[in-house]
Amino acid sequence: MYDFLNDYNQTVHPHLLKNFIDIADKKLSGYGLDDICDHAIESIKKQLKSPKADIHFMPGGTITNLTVISHILRPYQAVIATDTGHINVHETGAIEATGHKVLTVQTEDGKLTPELIKPVLTHHCDEHMVQPKLVYISNTTELGTVYTKQELKKLYQFCQKNHLYLYLDGARLAMALTAKDNDITFPDLAKYTDVFYIGGTKVGAFAGEAVIFNNLSINQDFRFSMKQKGAILAKSWVVAVQIKALMQNNLYLELGKHSNEMADKLKTLFEKAGLTFIAKPQSNQLFVNCPTQLAEKILAHYAVDNLGQTDAKHIGLRFCTSWSTQDEEIELFAEQFQTWLA
Amino acid sequence: MYDFLNDYNQTVHPHLLKNFIDIADKKLSGYGLDDICDHAIESIKKQLKSPKADIHFMPGGTITNLTVISHILRPYQAVIATDTGHINVHETGAIEATGHKVLTVQTEDGKLTPELIKPVLTHHCDEHMVQPKLVYISNTTELGTVYTKQELKKLYQFCQKNHLYLYLDGARLAMALTAKDNDITFPDLAKYTDVFYIGGTKVGAFAGEAVIFNNLSINQDFRFSMKQKGAILAKSWVVAVQIKALMQNNLYLELGKHSNEMADKLKTLFEKAGLTFIAKPQSNQLFVNCPTQLAEKILAHYAVDNLGQTDAKHIGLRFCTSWSTQDEEIELFAEQFQTWLA
Amino acid sequence: MYDFLNDYNQTVHPHLLKNFIDIADKKLSGYGLDDICDHAIESIKKQLKSPKADIHFMPGGTITNLTVISHILRPYQAVIATDTGHINVHETGAIEATGHKVLTVQTEDGKLTPELIKPVLTHHCDEHMVQPKLVYISNTTELGTVYTKQELKKLYQFCQKNHLYLYLDGARLAMALTAKDNDITFPDLAKYTDVFYIGGTKVGAFAGEAVIFNNLSINQDFRFSMKQKGAILAKSWVVAVQIKALMQNNLYLELGKHSNEMADKLKTLFEKAGLTFIAKPQSNQLFVNCPTQLAEKILAHYAVDNLGQTDAKHIGLRFCTSWSTQDEEIELFAEQFQTWLA
Amino acid sequence: MYDFLNDYNQTVHPHLLKNFIDIADKKLSGYGLDDICDHAIESIKKQLKSPKADIHFMPGGTITNLTVISHILRPYQAVIATDTGHINVHETGAIEATGHKVLTVQTEDGKLTPELIKPVLTHHCDEHMVQPKLVYISNTTELGTVYTKQELKKLYQFCQKNHLYLYLDGARLAMALTAKDNDITFPDLAKYTDVFYIGGTKVGAFAGEAVIFNNLSINQDFRFSMKQKGAILAKSWVVAVQIKALMQNNLYLELGKHSNEMADKLKTLFEKAGLTFIAKPQSNQLFVNCPTQLAEKILAHYAVDNLGQTDAKHIGLRFCTSWSTQDEEIELFAEQFQTWLA
Repeated sequence: MYDFLNDYNQTVHPHLLKNFIDIADKKLSGYGLDDICDHAIESIKKQLKSPKADIHFMPGGTITNLTVISHILRPYQAVIATDTGHINVHETGAIEATGHKVLTVQTEDGKLTPELIKPVLTHHCDEHMVQPKLVYISNTTELGTVYTKQELKKLYQFCQKNHLYLYLDGARLAMALTAKDNDITFPDLAKYTDVFYIGGTKVGAFAGEAVIFNNLSINQDFRFSMKQKGAILAKSWVVAVQIKALMQNNLYLELGKHSNEMADKLKTLFEKAGLTFIAKPQSNQLFVNCPTQLAEKILAHYAVDNLGQTDAKHIGLRFCTSWSTQDEEIELFAEQFQTWLA
Repeated sequence: MYDFLNDYNQTVHPHLLKNFIDIADKKLSGYGLDDICDHAIESIKKQLKSPKADIHFMPGGTITNLTVISHILRPYQAVIATDTGHINVHETGAIEATGHKVLTVQTEDGKLTPELIKPVLTHHCDEHMVQPKLVYISNTTELGTVYTKQELKKLYQFCQKNHLYLYLDGARLAMALTAKDNDITFPDLAKYTDVFYIGGTKVGAFAGEAVIFNNLSINQDFRFSMKQKGAILAKSWVVAVQIKALMQNNLYLELGKHSNEMADKLKTLFEKAGLTFIAKPQSNQLFVNCPTQLAEKILAHYAVDNLGQTDAKHIGLRFCTSWSTQDEEIELFAEQFQTWLA
Repeated sequence: MYDFLNDYNQTVHPHLLKNFIDIADKKLSGYGLDDICDHAIESIKKQLKSPKADIHFMPGGTITNLTVISHILRPYQAVIATDTGHINVHETGAIEATGHKVLTVQTEDGKLTPELIKPVLTHHCDEHMVQPKLVYISNTTELGTVYTKQELKKLYQFCQKNHLYLYLDGARLAMALTAKDNDITFPDLAKYTDVFYIGGTKVGAFAGEAVIFNNLSINQDFRFSMKQKGAILAKSWVVAVQIKALMQNNLYLELGKHSNEMADKLKTLFEKAGLTFIAKPQSNQLFVNCPTQLAEKILAHYAVDNLGQTDAKHIGLRFCTSWSTQDEEIELFAEQFQTWLA
Repeated sequence: MYDFLNDYNQTVHPHLLKNFIDIADKKLSGYGLDDICDHAIESIKKQLKSPKADIHFMPGGTITNLTVISHILRPYQAVIATDTGHINVHETGAIEATGHKVLTVQTEDGKLTPELIKPVLTHHCDEHMVQPKLVYISNTTELGTVYTKQELKKLYQFCQKNHLYLYLDGARLAMALTAKDNDITFPDLAKYTDVFYIGGTKVGAFAGEAVIFNNLSINQDFRFSMKQKGAILAKSWVVAVQIKALMQNNLYLELGKHSNEMADKLKTLFEKAGLTFIAKPQSNQLFVNCPTQLAEKILAHYAVDNLGQTDAKHIGLRFCTSWSTQDEEIELFAEQFQTWLA
């Protein structure tokens, strides 16, 4: 059974593996204080055109989110997210476990806007309620949608004006920055967020993300928080060497682009079949309203995420492509799909 | 300026004060291990007809909620509440500060039902999400509505079946048990909740609530949790003597009934004026849709809670009466109200 | 059976009770925003000669400690205390429950000094260890000893120099400020601590302490922390009215002085009998090395704290006197003691 | 400059790397639910002769400790450790950050015994103090010493009798099980601990440890805790494949043995030179009292851990060898050492 289940089931991209093998006989300092980490940091700064950025390597997305957020907030402060936000749904209460409330906003498309945040600020007016202080967004979002530069800029300016910090979860940043509708660049992320992370795990790394603090008023002593949460690997170079490889020759963006292109082929297929989408298909995740009978056939042959009934006659399915998805796999699926449609 | 702002602005009921004065020269053991606490416990058990209940005295509502909930839950477990629930809105993230997520359900009337909870259970299906384990309800609710015995029983049975615990916040329990629509008794609370508290602060006490564990599988070592959270007063008898006084001669229920009756007069007044209610008026809190001009007059002369615009032409106002509200105060308001209407 | 068990077994001082009764029919705003609180704050500021102090009322000592300490520290920072410190031993891990380590220093007399703290600072040199940030002292200490003005000043200056905050737990501050060996005044506390609290519960109040922030760079949003921890009583005036009464006509210090004088009589008695002390007897707590047989007689007739064997032939006993201890009680004990000695 | 600084500065053992490369083109399920994890679990069970053991893969030592300990304890319970214990000193308050106190016991040799624990249990007698519930030991200890089977068994039996759980931190378990003085086997660990972990990071893995629950009454829902703490890698097989390789053909124990043997040569060298040890040299960590002048020469040429002055004339140095330390490196050091001695 082949799958479009997610983008972290493939092991590791050959180029990353090669870089990893190349240093296999080196002796390196512990806890991120080594040459490989330094080089990786330099290559990220170059991409961001941000020589002052403060950069750290982490073993995974959830631990990145909980470490960054708990580091920034005072005990009574809260983070604002969409109700579909990863920190709200799929991290087993990791943020709350560090003591902070996640304030949620309902959205159609998984994207936050100043308009959606304003009522939250108005409502939280005194010490009987938590104090909103941080805005959490994901790009691509958990619904596969992407922010435009204008949207990001407006959101950041709104945050600035309202003394909020803006944190961007980049688990699928490669796919966001290479989506057809995207006009955000790496340097824009340095300009229009306080902190964000470049996700590796879903873009060919076997593990690892790079956290970038643009706002140097909130990162003091961050390594203390990292150590306390168990987020510094003794051998941090394990992450750094992969991130560095991803930064070379545009590999990161190429892998993101490929992921999106594979999904785009599925999108065309579904559109031709008259299927509709739960959220606008913009990146490597497609959320499809699938007639029940068709959905059952797909589910019988393919590992895809079953989102349950979306209405009386449809089942929601998530198709997720990746850097390693092959044209042949898409073609094979397309053939079978046509059969099932007939 | 007179007020219908809340039910805890009055100091203390004379009968409670008298009981307090009567023991002013006694010597009593510390931390709840004294005769007064024992007597208060006995008087509660008698009311509940529940000789095995495990009872503790606490200095306030928020600390009661956070101590009880954090005692019961394992680190990855969550509590389900309405989105208007006190623990979700007005406790400055107290539950999250102990590490637990509050899962919310939107309601019209502030009341939870099995039907509302089911989707939460279905959704939280694996270890990527928190594990719902406790259901939090308030009676009266934060919208002034009350549960019927049948509703409570059904909810409890649903919880039992789904391995959830049911916790009832009784900050305004006196008003709930004496509402016109109520048919719940103290012994019903012992039968149909795992744990609940009898609120004193809003019913004439200067401070204090009594927590009652009916389910003796979840209260082990509860005094450790109390001490850790700072919830055991060295002189716990301060709370106990008041709760005991409230239990005598039905005083608690009488004060609740009086609070409701005062609100009922306001309700009649508002209904005659053609005003509508945001939530069904059932107890001592009325949530009124008030034409903007009228609302502004009321707000200029009375301290009532301004809930903001409910639509283009109305402002929401909360009127809250109490055990100490006087007929004359209602009548005076009624006179002025008629003038403003004219 | 009479007792020298502690200083919080007596209910409430008549003067405090009278003040409490006097306002029993008032209507007061909730959550500390009332006139009584304002007046109490003014009377404390006057005592401290510190018009800018930021003052809050809390229902008890443990909740005061946990709220203040967790408010000041960042997640990875720790508080330094003596190993006998209340927060280290007798608060059921309340500080750790807010996420912070208590770093302990062994002492003979329960008092911290720069010399004792220095090695802790030296040891905690990087992000693999917590960052010491707050120094916690008690006055009187948990061993009944007191700080001199010189000691306090030196400690404060050391903290200043080393970017540490100094917090003084004043559960028994009345006894400290009236000890024979004391030369600290209220204004000194405003000068030589960052934050401290004036304890009421052990000095005649039925509950309540006043927290005073002298350092206005660490108290921002403190009411948010208070609300989150359940530390703001809806009727905060309950505490304020008592603290205000204690500030009037030197009552607080008089009660402290009386407590000490009663202990001093016991001290003379014990010294005459050739008993030695575990810690220097300076206030209302005496820690006595008592020959086993004598100790057993005392324990059979008096409620005193049994500290266990201090060596093969002695049992440690804590005698604690209070504002309400009577001369006759001391005399009665003295008589019996002489009999047991004989 | 060569170093004896620690045992995690080398990248990865060739055999582990080979196993890792061999699966580089596989497609594997996420979050530990894949074949590689299953195989690794089976190979561990076989080593332990414990078919029912519950086994999980984690990315590092600190996150393992905090996840296991916070999973087992109720909020008011504490863990007992030596004052040199890793969780007490070098994890930046990770355990406290999950809400739990670390109760410490002073030792000479870094090892806990029933005799050392008894007074802690006696002292913690009521709800004013935390409740000791878990005993944390490391093998090898942080001082390089090792437990005998008899010591472990006695400790476990003492824990059983006193309703304590026993958790063994096996960051350097390979060195412990191959120390000259060792008589503990893998199956003994299954019998005489409630939970322990097999450390990979210090034994040739680039990251990863395996947690083994022997007591199946404390592991319920452990994956929820793992996910919440960010401790499940999306690609858990990254850890599993390495642990599996270590379990094959006794590689884990061979690498431990080699580490110890290299240290043993240094030990002989130091003994011949008349140096004494801070703790009994039993494994790959040597804690040496080094005359100041000699120490300075060593520190000028070698990266070793400087523990500071141990007395007026000596500096403490930690020498740490590893699986990758070469005979030639020891010989080279020996030559230089002789020169410095002369």
